[in-house]
Amino acid sequence: MPTILAVPLPALPEITHGDDLAVLIADAWGAMANEQPDLAPKPGDVLVVTQKIVSKAEGCVVDLTTIEPRPEAVEFAKRWDRDARQVEVVLRESVDVLRMERGIVISRTKHGFVCANAGVDASNTGRGDLVTLLPDDPDASARRIRDGLATRLNLAPDQAPAVIVSDSFGRPWRFGIVDVALGVAGIAPLVDWRGRPDADGRVMHSTVVALADEICSAAELAASKTSRQPVVLVRGVDFEATQEDGPESAPPSVQRDVVMPLDMDLFK
Amino acid sequence: MPTILAVPLPALPEITHGDDLAVLIADAWGAMANEQPDLAPKPGDVLVVTQKIVSKAEGCVVDLTTIEPRPEAVEFAKRWDRDARQVEVVLRESVDVLRMERGIVISRTKHGFVCANAGVDASNTGRGDLVTLLPDDPDASARRIRDGLATRLNLAPDQAPAVIVSDSFGRPWRFGIVDVALGVAGIAPLVDWRGRPDADGRVMHSTVVALADEICSAAELAASKTSRQPVVLVRGVDFEATQEDGPESAPPSVQRDVVMPLDMDLFK
Repeated sequence: MPTILAVPLPALPEITHGDDLAVLIADAWGAMANEQPDLAPKPGDVLVVTQKIVSKAEGCVVDLTTIEPRPEAVEFAKRWDRDARQVEVVLRESVDVLRMERGIVISRTKHGFVCANAGVDASNTGRGDLVTLLPDDPDASARRIRDGLATRLNLAPDQAPAVIVSDSFGRPWRFGIVDVALGVAGIAPLVDWRGRPDADGRVMHSTVVALADEICSAAELAASKTSRQPVVLVRGVDFEATQEDGPESAPPSVQRDVVMPLDMDLFK
Repeated sequence: MPTILAVPLPALPEITHGDDLAVLIADAWGAMANEQPDLAPKPGDVLVVTQKIVSKAEGCVVDLTTIEPRPEAVEFAKRWDRDARQVEVVLRESVDVLRMERGIVISRTKHGFVCANAGVDASNTGRGDLVTLLPDDPDASARRIRDGLATRLNLAPDQAPAVIVSDSFGRPWRFGIVDVALGVAGIAPLVDWRGRPDADGRVMHSTVVALADEICSAAELAASKTSRQPVVLVRGVDFEATQEDGPESAPPSVQRDVVMPLDMDLFK
């Protein structure tokens, strides 16, 4: 019987620019496995890592005291009681602004993500005038962490746990944020059930499941917003480990596989 | 350490109109607990039940041979190789059609849900000319199942497991469907972290987590699309059981709490 397990790794230290996340994660995982040997790394494991620590480790952090806001940012911030410098950073991180209202900027980032405030975030940054930006290339971030884990855990590269970089996004039409995948390594972000028969033998149409996004949501349930547990082990997911940098197949990618080209979006 | 567990209950028999889901679910759960006593019902459990069996049990099923499609449905179906009678049912279930393209109708249902084909679904219906509609009032469906479980499991009503009715929805801007909550009982669908301090003591802004949606996504990971396992037990979620029909508080509701009023939607 498939059973899904989501367990947060022990708290990591405060992350700063240059930290080797793979080392810190492997050490935390090792400490947990010492206490609970059944939680030691095994094939099929997925690690969900929050964007926040990836951004900090990669130096995707902006000191607001260095930012000169444009007049539009000053006006918007004043109207909605926001920090004009932070609004300025949001606008710089936005390729296309869809809407500015009630203190929130809804925009498309260079990655193609549509989200609130371009993923710029002031919470849990350790200092009031620091904000984090989204990682430059979250798929590459996930690959680097996975490769580092393979080294540190002494595993063949294709035997290392899959890694997903997650963030919390709002959605149209429904209140509340859910965690979704920004980048992946070692796991395809979508599972295509199209063409497979359902329980009655009928062919299922248009059933492509956003597996990586669902894994991030499951991980979020296990983590606590106010504790420093930015990495969650998810075990039991039915997926085929994807080949990385193989001779014929490109590695999996949220940006390539999940982000919808503008002209494909039926919901808009 | 909070750990999330998602385990599908054993397969249920084919569901038909009038079946008592609470009885069937309690029996399946009992059979599972006989094999694995640690999976017997306990406080804090959440059961995620797919919309499909709820609709079937409630008779929210349409026989397409009784449907006379309007000309618009005939034309759209012909162009995109769809069943005109099914398109007709989708249009009848739609309060507001946002878009019709590539064989898919994106519309708002009477419940306020914006989704593909108004939730009308032909897969796993047991017969090729039957389609299921969304339940009339999914919050009420969840409450009925929860109340029935309390009776069958011999628990006080507020000690019964929480129940969430789930369905798979597409989203704008991202490929792939994710499971979300259509109705809830015994659990608030949103968790409001606003005003609570983050790990650095800063007050977090606008962090309302769509807890019920994330639970549905976790449950989907444990279920298999092609097997008849429409109910998943999710254990370990950090939530306060909500009072049902208490003297002062209204029961939790996806339709009231999660569905966004049109004028509040910043993403549109």
